[in-house]
Amino acid sequence: MINKAISLLAAALGFVAMLVAGPQYAAEPGAAAPNGIALPEGYRDWRVIGTSHREDNRTLRVILGNDKAVAAARSGDLHPWPDGSILAKLVWQDVTHEAWARATVPGEFVHAEFMVKDAARYAATGGWGFARWTGQEQMPYGKDADFVQECFGCHTPRKNNDYVFTHPVTIP
Amino acid sequence: MINKAISLLAAALGFVAMLVAGPQYAAEPGAAAPNGIALPEGYRDWRVIGTSHREDNRTLRVILGNDKAVAAARSGDLHPWPDGSILAKLVWQDVTHEAWARATVPGEFVHAEFMVKDAARYAATGGWGFARWTGQEQMPYGKDADFVQECFGCHTPRKNNDYVFTHPVTIP
Repeated sequence: MINKAISLLAAALGFVAMLVAGPQYAAEPGAAAPNGIALPEGYRDWRVIGTSHREDNRTLRVILGNDKAVAAARSGDLHPWPDGSILAKLVWQDVTHEAWARATVPGEFVHAEFMVKDAARYAATGGWGFARWTGQEQMPYGKDADFVQECFGCHTPRKNNDYVFTHPVTIP
Repeated sequence: MINKAISLLAAALGFVAMLVAGPQYAAEPGAAAPNGIALPEGYRDWRVIGTSHREDNRTLRVILGNDKAVAAARSGDLHPWPDGSILAKLVWQDVTHEAWARATVPGEFVHAEFMVKDAARYAATGGWGFARWTGQEQMPYGKDADFVQECFGCHTPRKNNDYVFTHPVTIP
């Protein structure tokens, strides 16, 4: 009798804990991010906005943009980037070129990160929605929607540049 | 009388020297390269094949390809690259990111280099035609058609990779 009461109580407490924690996010390859942002279609074919080499975590990056972002980058009018702009940052581990000892080239794919501009919808995070998919299998990053605090925290020092690290390249 | 004869002789020798040296190549912004390769149209909008960081000459690069080259790169069938492939290597001086001390980003544009695949036409240089345009004003590189020996010399160690240094990236 007491055992049964204890197990009922445990079940009730578990139920309450689930309600408090909110629904569990079920990550699947290519699924939407925990904040609801879907993996943008066709980003592999977007045009180049920039590149960078981070020597702290040994990664090489290419930053692509959708048509709206590319048009904005080429116009130079980026304060702010226009609504509808999407930036895609593709990240690879860096490796030394086998035939050029002082050249670094992309190795294994690490992740794809996106910034989606919608000033009203994402007002709480500088007008940008953030999302990341990890690895070749494109697993959405983050346990729940709070993962964006990590993205936004890192981008906050760039507030005066509309939260963007990327330097759009000049291509004649 | 003797002075006139000397000056006639000098003019004649100059004419012979010009004949031996061949016609002078007149470099103008955006003009064809000395070997006749024209600046490919629309390359700014081509898709990404790779990126690299050369720490010996402090440059960051993005390698774009025309449709044929991108299709080949994604298929992985690059021995050899198919005729009609064009690779565009865009090169910038590297600079340190002002808000991320260990990140390197593109600064001033240096030049755009192209490799044009035509196994028959460019048989003497591994099946590739080479050309380079320097700076934002896109001055064709090279005093005469022999400039390709410099390009080909540097690419010759990559003979077993169809003379290509670029590692095509994986993008999921």
